[in-house]
Amino acid sequence: LAENRILAGSKSTGLNQELLRGVVGGEFRAVARLITLVENDPAAAIAYLRELFPHTGRCFAIGVTGAPGAGKSTLVDALASSFRSQGGKVGIVAVDPTSPFSGGAILGDRIRMQSRTTDSGTFIRSMATRGHLGGLSRATADVIQVLDAAGFDVAIIETVGVGQDEVEIVRTAHATIVLLVPGMGDDIQTMKAGIMEIGDVFVINKSDRPGAERIEAELDALLSMSNRPDNWTPLVVRTVASEGLGVPECMNAIRAYRGFLESSCFQANRVLQIQKERLLELVKSRVMGDLASAPEFGTRLEDLARLVAERKLDPFSAADLLTERSCRIPPSREG
Amino acid sequence: LAENRILAGSKSTGLNQELLRGVVGGEFRAVARLITLVENDPAAAIAYLRELFPHTGRCFAIGVTGAPGAGKSTLVDALASSFRSQGGKVGIVAVDPTSPFSGGAILGDRIRMQSRTTDSGTFIRSMATRGHLGGLSRATADVIQVLDAAGFDVAIIETVGVGQDEVEIVRTAHATIVLLVPGMGDDIQTMKAGIMEIGDVFVINKSDRPGAERIEAELDALLSMSNRPDNWTPLVVRTVASEGLGVPECMNAIRAYRGFLESSCFQANRVLQIQKERLLELVKSRVMGDLASAPEFGTRLEDLARLVAERKLDPFSAADLLTERSCRIPPSREG
Repeated sequence: LAENRILAGSKSTGLNQELLRGVVGGEFRAVARLITLVENDPAAAIAYLRELFPHTGRCFAIGVTGAPGAGKSTLVDALASSFRSQGGKVGIVAVDPTSPFSGGAILGDRIRMQSRTTDSGTFIRSMATRGHLGGLSRATADVIQVLDAAGFDVAIIETVGVGQDEVEIVRTAHATIVLLVPGMGDDIQTMKAGIMEIGDVFVINKSDRPGAERIEAELDALLSMSNRPDNWTPLVVRTVASEGLGVPECMNAIRAYRGFLESSCFQANRVLQIQKERLLELVKSRVMGDLASAPEFGTRLEDLARLVAERKLDPFSAADLLTERSCRIPPSREG
Repeated sequence: LAENRILAGSKSTGLNQELLRGVVGGEFRAVARLITLVENDPAAAIAYLRELFPHTGRCFAIGVTGAPGAGKSTLVDALASSFRSQGGKVGIVAVDPTSPFSGGAILGDRIRMQSRTTDSGTFIRSMATRGHLGGLSRATADVIQVLDAAGFDVAIIETVGVGQDEVEIVRTAHATIVLLVPGMGDDIQTMKAGIMEIGDVFVINKSDRPGAERIEAELDALLSMSNRPDNWTPLVVRTVASEGLGVPECMNAIRAYRGFLESSCFQANRVLQIQKERLLELVKSRVMGDLASAPEFGTRLEDLARLVAERKLDPFSAADLLTERSCRIPPSREG
């Protein structure tokens, strides 16, 4: 792709203007193409995202997380339909864990996409979150920005599983929904620490199953101890998303939280927090990118790792050598 | 803690020699204290890890991952008992997702630790993997090194859930066990992409449940398409870990993989790969640590994030400004 060769920072030279116009015009194919660029070459995508920035600022981003099998896709579909029926334009992004070998999540992608029952007016995309340099939350933030520029009223970010990665992903959204299901035994216990504190709305899905009361009681007990800096008391909603039960209540809960955000000073705080984390991610990938592209970095990394593997050097001294030679001394002095 | 104030790189000044002797002597309390330092102040821990490096190189690290409820703790306990009965010294580290607000995973920790049935000769520790600078896999690698220096023959790294984080965590180990359970529906489908490719041994736990045959067939089909660079064919073992069933077979499978590693050139490759990733992590945290400790970095980050939140500046230009002022221009020029 031609745009893959465009370097970060080349502000307006060589940008594909048709692609930019397509995104601003809300064309799905243009949106999809730019998201592919964000995935494959985040540095190259920056030039586009920079141009699109003035067109952003209206989209409300909702993160949805929960254990595999909790019914995230089904709920997300139902929410998307509700937003659509209210006239909203909805984009869904399913963020997948990366395969460390093949770098993809293609199979999971296909399976999930096939199960979608949303209308053709809903933009759906899965995204692999590969590699270390780009960063999970950075890629997600970039994609939300693309959807925002394309005039989507709502962006729903759906994670595949639940964990620290997912926490970071959904924290790039304005509101976070955490899904639980009855009968997962001690899972609420192990989930507590990581994920429970980020939920603005909790959904007990498949709530026609035995144990719904118990999980709701546990959740209420937990939330009553909650100590959120913004004083928001997370709402708990019961759903059977596959039958549409509880979906209006879930929409109301989202609306209530959005209203809370907008009427309080915490909207600004949350946006500021999101931007701070995004800036840190951008700086990190910039710095690491500079480092990795330094002359002979790969060779030096390989050589030093070999010395460590052969136990001739400790890893910390190796890191010292790698950092100093790559960062401190300008490349021109080495020749 | 006094050792929290010791700076990275201060090679032998001010190190707590008693702590070092305690670790090398295999004292659990010293090991626990140093792991706490690794968690709380990775930069300060480096001075200790550097000193301990000559004492390392014998420990075999096993990563165990799988969905919540798959029975990881139970299997890990059973494996630890087996290694113990063979005279091995075993350390178990349960790596928890971080709470983004409180930075801990204390509750999950307690719950899991209470359920342990391992003997008192097994070192057990849970570890919160907080923050961005330290890095998940870096913290895990540091802890494995501590256990290695303390004379543990086997280190078992158990993750709480399954996901990209967990992939990174278990990749710091020599061998990876992936746990599956029958009756988790389509979970094997969604798990495939991320986790399936890293398993050296697959354990179908709770295999007395209906669906064990099906999941084994699916797994065999999947593994037959496997295209590992080392040509190892992952072994599949059925267990009912809570009753000890299949545990000897699981031990045999681990032994087989270890034998494969040692007899082939891939042991060296795997160790080299682990060291390369570790070096990258160390360099990343070094560089980002330098950046974050640059004068007024926090203030500049806050100011620039505010400008972005107020839509007066795009995030990419803000990142440019932050990187340039923090990295390119030495602080002394600014005064």
